[in-house]
Amino acid sequence: MKKFEEKTIASNLKYSGRVITLQVDEVLLPNGKTSNREIVKHPGAVAIIAITEDNKIILVEQYRKALERSIIEIPAGKIESGELPEVTARRELEEETGYTTKNLQYIQTFATSPGFADEIIHLYFAKNIEKMTEKASLDEDEFVELMYVSIEEMKTLIEENRIYDAKTAFAYLWLKDYLKEA
Amino acid sequence: MKKFEEKTIASNLKYSGRVITLQVDEVLLPNGKTSNREIVKHPGAVAIIAITEDNKIILVEQYRKALERSIIEIPAGKIESGELPEVTARRELEEETGYTTKNLQYIQTFATSPGFADEIIHLYFAKNIEKMTEKASLDEDEFVELMYVSIEEMKTLIEENRIYDAKTAFAYLWLKDYLKEA
Repeated sequence: MKKFEEKTIASNLKYSGRVITLQVDEVLLPNGKTSNREIVKHPGAVAIIAITEDNKIILVEQYRKALERSIIEIPAGKIESGELPEVTARRELEEETGYTTKNLQYIQTFATSPGFADEIIHLYFAKNIEKMTEKASLDEDEFVELMYVSIEEMKTLIEENRIYDAKTAFAYLWLKDYLKEA
Repeated sequence: MKKFEEKTIASNLKYSGRVITLQVDEVLLPNGKTSNREIVKHPGAVAIIAITEDNKIILVEQYRKALERSIIEIPAGKIESGELPEVTARRELEEETGYTTKNLQYIQTFATSPGFADEIIHLYFAKNIEKMTEKASLDEDEFVELMYVSIEEMKTLIEENRIYDAKTAFAYLWLKDYLKEA
């Protein structure tokens, strides 16, 4: 786990913002030379693969400023300070979709961009979801549109590049397997 | 594709580095209010799912400073300025693994962290790979160890969190499908 370790010689904070911070670390390489690593710190996130009783997948379309376009994703959100990932997952499911579940199953955790960021996503599976009577509310700068799609429709959305992010691409393959075995 | 568009009011460059730049955009939200978006700009990358004749998957272990540990990934690398993704894919395969191929098949492109970064990864599949006579060379600050694993071993590496990034998690599911159908 520490193979080819790069020891930190100095760490310089370049930016500290609302969601991310950026630091540049001067590191000692395995060959004795030094180099710089640009590192984005992120609080981590969760994402939820949620399906209805008739195996429709719940997706959300939202504008992603970094890409300058809207894309269709599985529900997801940042972990608040001190929050357990499972709590975040249920909260984000409720806020973004208006559904809740007693059946939240942990799937896997992965780093999204290990070359320059420490962001990890904890992935959950929600089935037996129930519509909430009170609509949970989004963050005030968040605008999403709900979609309910079949696994075949999800494939088409990928081919059209309307689904365009790694976690949702992963979710499609995971669900294809799951639905085949179910 | 422009649903819920956030128009840029102002864009402020906060950091410009070797690999990434960071800007904070002031945006006009669909409800008429304003907000800030922190955006990391990245040149984009490729990743290669490469298998040997006997269906061993070629993986590389390397230290990821952002995670402060080494993880096992499919070969990948940044796109150089002006380089076509397919050229990057062949170059990175050669540099990181010492194999080349005439059979490079495009799979899919995805954004890794659309919430704060514009990084996209173009994913390729390489089969009928051939050992090169001359070893291609890594970047001078790059240290990787090659591994050849079966799909079952890849599953174990995921369970052990030694495979821990989104593109390699995706690659596992993609390969499981591919090898089942092959």
